[in-house]
Amino acid sequence: MKKVLITGTVAFDEIETPAGSSGKVIGGAGTYISIASSLFTQNLAIVSIVGEDFPNKEIKYLNDRGINTEMIETVIGGKTFYWKGRYHENMISRDTLDTKLNVLEKFNPILNLDYSSSEIVLLGNLHPAVQLKVIKQTINPNKFIIMDTMNFWMENTLNELLSVVKKVNLIIINDEEAEQLTGEKNIYRAAEKILKTGPSKVIIKKGEHGSIYFDGKNNYLLPAFPVTSLIDPTGAGDSFAGGIAGLLSTKNKIGFEEIKEAMLYGTLTASFCVESFGIEGLRKLDRETLNRRLKIFKSYLT
Amino acid sequence: MKKVLITGTVAFDEIETPAGSSGKVIGGAGTYISIASSLFTQNLAIVSIVGEDFPNKEIKYLNDRGINTEMIETVIGGKTFYWKGRYHENMISRDTLDTKLNVLEKFNPILNLDYSSSEIVLLGNLHPAVQLKVIKQTINPNKFIIMDTMNFWMENTLNELLSVVKKVNLIIINDEEAEQLTGEKNIYRAAEKILKTGPSKVIIKKGEHGSIYFDGKNNYLLPAFPVTSLIDPTGAGDSFAGGIAGLLSTKNKIGFEEIKEAMLYGTLTASFCVESFGIEGLRKLDRETLNRRLKIFKSYLT
Repeated sequence: MKKVLITGTVAFDEIETPAGSSGKVIGGAGTYISIASSLFTQNLAIVSIVGEDFPNKEIKYLNDRGINTEMIETVIGGKTFYWKGRYHENMISRDTLDTKLNVLEKFNPILNLDYSSSEIVLLGNLHPAVQLKVIKQTINPNKFIIMDTMNFWMENTLNELLSVVKKVNLIIINDEEAEQLTGEKNIYRAAEKILKTGPSKVIIKKGEHGSIYFDGKNNYLLPAFPVTSLIDPTGAGDSFAGGIAGLLSTKNKIGFEEIKEAMLYGTLTASFCVESFGIEGLRKLDRETLNRRLKIFKSYLT
Repeated sequence: MKKVLITGTVAFDEIETPAGSSGKVIGGAGTYISIASSLFTQNLAIVSIVGEDFPNKEIKYLNDRGINTEMIETVIGGKTFYWKGRYHENMISRDTLDTKLNVLEKFNPILNLDYSSSEIVLLGNLHPAVQLKVIKQTINPNKFIIMDTMNFWMENTLNELLSVVKKVNLIIINDEEAEQLTGEKNIYRAAEKILKTGPSKVIIKKGEHGSIYFDGKNNYLLPAFPVTSLIDPTGAGDSFAGGIAGLLSTKNKIGFEEIKEAMLYGTLTASFCVESFGIEGLRKLDRETLNRRLKIFKSYLT
């Protein structure tokens, strides 16, 4: 089992979708990713930051799932990162109603010795400068770095973002972001261009339309699982990435076959995520339930 | 080999896309469908209408492909249906710059005895009243009717459209049209609703994102072939439908396995179509080329 290090936000979210409102719940890319990964491994840790207002019981919940939280810094007197958003009728586009960076503004990730040697490093959506700080503290020469990012960083911190992209093995990005990053409307051409900027593997997410993988030689086209009861898309991409990292951690090597299996599991993890508000879909999930859906999913693909 | 009867427009098109202009070329749903189908069978005919201005050599071209054109009526002194359109930058949405129905306004399809007994009937995009007239002249009790349609008919002739839908075995429709027809945003729910209106099988097309099949019991999710050089999307849906009908005509029965193979071939036929203007992509295509791409495509899917 490969050791997995995750970085990403641990946050409070308030989410409104056409299906209802979540109220104030815990969220954040790091939370979704680590819970998703913990479906596959208990050899994982998250480096993040929260305020004093973050409930101990939620940290304990992460621990109970086998997630090492020693590197979640709690800022005394500080407040946890907060995001409030409303999804449009199409359940894809959304408006941010409120963002309070709070303690995230001063997040300076410090890895402990144990997890600095992680074989898999997943950089969740965060300021690229923070992602870079995490990379710089990793010491495993054979590490496999996965990066997720967002258009916000392309618009505001492109140079820093590109310096991170250069160092990663696998970049996970959505179709619009791939176009924005490369200027290419065609996602296959965009993927080719991205491969020239550093990563040897690229996954482009297409939301309800699935995802594609490209490494310059191998192609994999994977539809999304047919979700008929979409409640809240928040965390879908994070669950996808977390599922991928988690599944890969169970493998001896990370080649095309392993990536394909990981994408199947990532896709299904995300499908459960979006069927409930916030992290509730992931809370209810276990490997057995995932495997049942995997069997169904595979029957839809061949 | 099952006999295939196709109805649809035979037309002149003038197409502008971000990749260039076609000039005045032959087009129309019936043209694309019959050429696509003729990749798989020479036991097929088209019922349609043209004006005196339609070039004999193009009719001869269809004949040379094995397509029976005896039921293409030529109206002396009449002009062929004409469409001029411009695709937007995204190569999906388009503006109609000009439409002249011309002889199409008085199209009254008359089947000859030979093809009224066809085992496969493909109703291409046309006024539903015309589609209905074709159905009424078919006499094979075991016929398999495939219908393609468009949002235009939902907006303008919904009741007539629904009376056709009721009689077909397989409806092929795109995602937006499925939503418009059922009021369901979720395509899987939309597919379920469509099955209650008559057809026992439904294929929902998602353009560059592929297509899905649903029959109430079996599901099939098929990505599109990765086209990196998209020139002209005109006729993609018709080529898809034509490829499906053509492949099905080579089978003894039409079950889930046959539909899946047909969708693979339909997808690839469409992928060649959009790589050139008008019907040029189909003109250049043969079964061997299709089969080569099929091998590549399958390697992307598993």
